Amino acid sequence: MRWAEDKFTSVPVTLAGERPFTIHLNGQEIVTLLCSPDHLEELAVGFLVAEGLLDRPEELIEVLVDTDKGWGWVKTRVERLLTKEAMSRRYIGSGCGGGTGFYTLADAWKCRPVEGKLRVSPTDLLALIQDLQRGSELYRTTRGVHSAALYKPGGTVVFREDIGRHNAVDKIAGYCFLHGLATEDRLLMVSGRISSEILAKAAKMGIPVLVSRSVPTDLAVEYGLDLGITIVGFARGRRFNVYTHPERIISD
Amino acid sequence: MRWAEDKFTSVPVTLAGERPFTIHLNGQEIVTLLCSPDHLEELAVGFLVAEGLLDRPEELIEVLVDTDKGWGWVKTRVERLLTKEAMSRRYIGSGCGGGTGFYTLADAWKCRPVEGKLRVSPTDLLALIQDLQRGSELYRTTRGVHSAALYKPGGTVVFREDIGRHNAVDKIAGYCFLHGLATEDRLLMVSGRISSEILAKAAKMGIPVLVSRSVPTDLAVEYGLDLGITIVGFARGRRFNVYTHPERIISD
Repeated sequence: MRWAEDKFTSVPVTLAGERPFTIHLNGQEIVTLLCSPDHLEELAVGFLVAEGLLDRPEELIEVLVDTDKGWGWVKTRVERLLTKEAMSRRYIGSGCGGGTGFYTLADAWKCRPVEGKLRVSPTDLLALIQDLQRGSELYRTTRGVHSAALYKPGGTVVFREDIGRHNAVDKIAGYCFLHGLATEDRLLMVSGRISSEILAKAAKMGIPVLVSRSVPTDLAVEYGLDLGITIVGFARGRRFNVYTHPERIISD
Repeated sequence: MRWAEDKFTSVPVTLAGERPFTIHLNGQEIVTLLCSPDHLEELAVGFLVAEGLLDRPEELIEVLVDTDKGWGWVKTRVERLLTKEAMSRRYIGSGCGGGTGFYTLADAWKCRPVEGKLRVSPTDLLALIQDLQRGSELYRTTRGVHSAALYKPGGTVVFREDIGRHNAVDKIAGYCFLHGLATEDRLLMVSGRISSEILAKAAKMGIPVLVSRSVPTDLAVEYGLDLGITIVGFARGRRFNVYTHPERIISD
């Protein structure tokens, strides 16, 4: 029932789908995510890569997904042990293991500084912002999902949507892993806020330029400064803010 | 650096604070949340209540928080064991334990149907929506935080903000728990999406009317129907949608 202009009318709506998805690695239950139930192979692989449980493509034996049941099974050649740190990270479901200092966290995430050659002009950046908005605005505002897109000079590598900000980025990482595509030296654009966790996922992917329609948190900015990642936020219409490493944004 | 009107200018900005906060219950580390570092006593208590680890006010002995270090210690009289289900829920950091059917989840969450007498008129609802927008819009769009507010007939009970949607709701639950205030038969308004987890938190609080500026997911709507919760979404300006149990929205 929609209330508008002082009266109720009955209006059909399409809701964003939300499903639990349980990922198993070599028979062990790893995590249950609440997600948009599409591209689940990518989500399973991208999540494991982001958590450091899967590293090189040759380690992967198979990925099986049952979308209806919400189960994924990943089999790898290398049994990476769930360290206390990894347990701790998974435990909270959202990023960091109890430390409060930046270096503790960066260490826990095993993030290395990003060394990308990528440079972007404001004109290109504004075009990409419009591209993501065009591609997702209607869907996002009416169905409540987040979008993320990976760009290389000259075009889009992959565009994904999910009810979870983190899942959309994991799907992109998983797509690239499964297709043997580089994520280093690419531009990653997200619709949602840049929290420390999104920043860490970008760092793991070797992303030098991270762009959002929304704003970064102070912790994300601190990490971005330290890890050499250019953070662009509040990117809407014909404007944006550069919070860290502006040297990669080169005027035309 | 802000890019606008085709040039860069240097502009001071205030960023939303993001800090890890580790909650201990009776000496045991329970979870680390990434949150806005304010009202942490409320967050600790609200989280434990939502997870079913703290039930009645008389169980609580003390809450100690070190905001700088990001630590919270809660001491209770009743040692609630972390069941396999609870572990599984905490494990994913975000709500449900691997089942795919609704009843499995509802059971895992131990949510009971809500029986509220609360009725709201569209006029009152529109006023509340404007109230939350006024109270938070500037802050939210410039600093990237979510807001949540609990209302009773005649006024606001409590308003909280956090970089995490879930944390803002947990702070409200914690505030009410610590001050001995009822959450039953109140209206809860949130700025972010209504996912199944937000719906479950509302159900645990006995909230009959849950309102969001954004939209609910299909799973949240399914739970709302079953648990007797009126879900109002897309509440902006002079309009809103009612997704479930419209009988509580009574025209003037």
